[in-house]
Amino acid sequence: MRAAILSTGDELTTGRTLDTNANYIADQLLANGFEVVAMMTVGDYPERIETAWRTLFEQAEIVIGTGGLGPTADDLTTETVARMLGVPLISDQATANKIRGFFEAMGRQMPANNLKQALFPEGATILENDMGTAPGFRFQFPSPRGALHGVVMPGVPREMKHLMADRVLPWLQALRSADEAWRSHTFQTFGISESALDEMVADAVDPTAVRLAFRAAFPQISLRVTVQGHPGDLEARLAGAAAAIRERLGEYCYAEGDMTMEGEVGRLLAAGGATIAVAESCTGGLVAHRLTNIAGSSAYVLGGVVAYSNEIKQSALGVDAATLARHGAVSTEVAEEMARGVRRATGADYGLATTGIAGPGGGSAEKPVGTVCIAIDGPSGAHSHRYQLWGNREWVKLLASQIALDWVRRAVLGQDPSASAVLRR
Amino acid sequence: MRAAILSTGDELTTGRTLDTNANYIADQLLANGFEVVAMMTVGDYPERIETAWRTLFEQAEIVIGTGGLGPTADDLTTETVARMLGVPLISDQATANKIRGFFEAMGRQMPANNLKQALFPEGATILENDMGTAPGFRFQFPSPRGALHGVVMPGVPREMKHLMADRVLPWLQALRSADEAWRSHTFQTFGISESALDEMVADAVDPTAVRLAFRAAFPQISLRVTVQGHPGDLEARLAGAAAAIRERLGEYCYAEGDMTMEGEVGRLLAAGGATIAVAESCTGGLVAHRLTNIAGSSAYVLGGVVAYSNEIKQSALGVDAATLARHGAVSTEVAEEMARGVRRATGADYGLATTGIAGPGGGSAEKPVGTVCIAIDGPSGAHSHRYQLWGNREWVKLLASQIALDWVRRAVLGQDPSASAVLRR
Repeated sequence: MRAAILSTGDELTTGRTLDTNANYIADQLLANGFEVVAMMTVGDYPERIETAWRTLFEQAEIVIGTGGLGPTADDLTTETVARMLGVPLISDQATANKIRGFFEAMGRQMPANNLKQALFPEGATILENDMGTAPGFRFQFPSPRGALHGVVMPGVPREMKHLMADRVLPWLQALRSADEAWRSHTFQTFGISESALDEMVADAVDPTAVRLAFRAAFPQISLRVTVQGHPGDLEARLAGAAAAIRERLGEYCYAEGDMTMEGEVGRLLAAGGATIAVAESCTGGLVAHRLTNIAGSSAYVLGGVVAYSNEIKQSALGVDAATLARHGAVSTEVAEEMARGVRRATGADYGLATTGIAGPGGGSAEKPVGTVCIAIDGPSGAHSHRYQLWGNREWVKLLASQIALDWVRRAVLGQDPSASAVLRR
Repeated sequence: MRAAILSTGDELTTGRTLDTNANYIADQLLANGFEVVAMMTVGDYPERIETAWRTLFEQAEIVIGTGGLGPTADDLTTETVARMLGVPLISDQATANKIRGFFEAMGRQMPANNLKQALFPEGATILENDMGTAPGFRFQFPSPRGALHGVVMPGVPREMKHLMADRVLPWLQALRSADEAWRSHTFQTFGISESALDEMVADAVDPTAVRLAFRAAFPQISLRVTVQGHPGDLEARLAGAAAAIRERLGEYCYAEGDMTMEGEVGRLLAAGGATIAVAESCTGGLVAHRLTNIAGSSAYVLGGVVAYSNEIKQSALGVDAATLARHGAVSTEVAEEMARGVRRATGADYGLATTGIAGPGGGSAEKPVGTVCIAIDGPSGAHSHRYQLWGNREWVKLLASQIALDWVRRAVLGQDPSASAVLRR
């Protein structure tokens, strides 16, 4: 079945917001065996929204839309869809009560226009949204080509992803005919470029039987392996293809399935009953933030120190003034003392440290912007390494945090942490 | 004049690559007074590409396309445009020579299909590309609505940006009639819902003369005020509308223009020559990460402590064991001791602290998930407050970090920090 994606919002057509929703939905549709024939974006004008829906339904049997479900006057999707379908808007009592309850729980007066979010085109199926006040909905209508299906979700990425996973994908899977099944398996990689990855796995599988899709979501690249056909032998075919890819990827694959680096690090620490503390200079709290994004991380994250100034490196982490003077704050020597210091101060099993120059200022000929030193101190001793990273401030922080987390993963697995991230471009 | 944007490529419709070109072009068009009425993305199929061009020309006088100009068989834009225009493809000798020279200079044999990049629809104006082998081109054709204009550029962002700046924008500026211009001004708000904001400003300006656009990028909501018309009085009309909105927003507006909360906090700290250190429990490093995302933040961020465990709250921040025992780790009393402790340990002018329950576990009847205490200790003394936030772990962390940053902003401005965020219970 052919699908299309519609993104609605002035913030998109004016270039103020980068649309990541359409990209995410396209990837999910591909993984579930739907071909995306077109993606479209329009601003908050009823006639443009209606034209877009009609245009996309001429090319696809399923149109998935985001945006325009908010409570304000420029949120026009619901009434536009109702007009296109020629049906009235109906208020859903359960949704209205939920919205009222949401404001009551906050002890706030509900603005009257919020009840707009309880209106749906007659006949639509409501997609309950546990993450916000605006539910999504789906609808269908007949055409000479057969039934056409529309889905509408809020434009807030978090809410959209929740609705995709919980309400939309299960429905899409049921919609697809039974003799046309798909199975896929995902590998998460780090430390290798997309083109090098492509070369590495190019002839590992038969391209007419197995589809490989790369997706670069910096700083990790995922590789999805998909097989399609009769349900009978799909699992066996997928297992064979995955085994061939797994062998090629080797240590560049840090996890399989839907797993982040911080999730994998947390899983390994929790499984081993180990604890960690971090001492961050150039990453400025990002490593601790990522570690503590994982639910249950208080079981293994003791805490950390953001040591931006040299004084704090000395007072909180016990870095030697002589080491700072001799090697400079950005050095493997200082990184090791930071890692050892935070480990000692907290009693953690692993002490992890970053120090570097995120830029744009602060670089020198000897230590240009992007110079980053990582160190870990743990049960098997101390390791450190100096990297030359690239890109802007945000990019250097993110890449340094990824390498640092990969060091923990490798250390817990008993590998040499400094083997991390060849970053072949 | 109305404009539309077309992005071409299978890598976009399969979700493999995030399309940043359309966002960039939309922003550039807006800045130059063109309204983008639609954006569309299609894969590398001639019929889909032609349908997209035709669809967009129905809605806009200018269509700007990217992608499909490469040398390979799936690069189909040029031949599709020629077919749509009903004109033959003509080889451009100068371009062909340049492509041959490019390969000669590298000492490589030129694959024959590269000469495809020297073909253009008859009558097209070539847009020379100094950054790659594929030039762009533009074309025009008559319609009952007047002349319609098309632009085609390579999909490589670097080459597209170069052609936009050097070839496309100067031509667009010449095309625009002198009596049609746009001006806009943006307000950044926090602590108020989008719908309440809408009600607050609803009748502040004449909606037929001033356009208001909200953008919720959690946890902040921006409001853009736009006026359109003859260039002569635009600045005065914008200033009048902005003044009316500014008065309504009051203290909910934390900054004007393109400014984040951490950017505004940094600006205020730097301007006042003040320093800050943070003690984070539930935000787990996110406040420090956001503060240090700002270039130059090492001038005012001394550092911080991520105090996840009670032991670190005591050892690194000097929180009293008795306070922990009496009030629990999530309390305004502990938050104040954390803020005071990090200020004392670092010598910062401001000590900022967060402690709370981000969830999903760890809540109780008395202190449910989302309970967050914020404290600041500074030149004008200590303040603290307990908030009841909501949502999942990521949301609680993000919202708590935003409130904490707003506390710094208010403290530096000499306001009562605990007046921040009506979002509290």
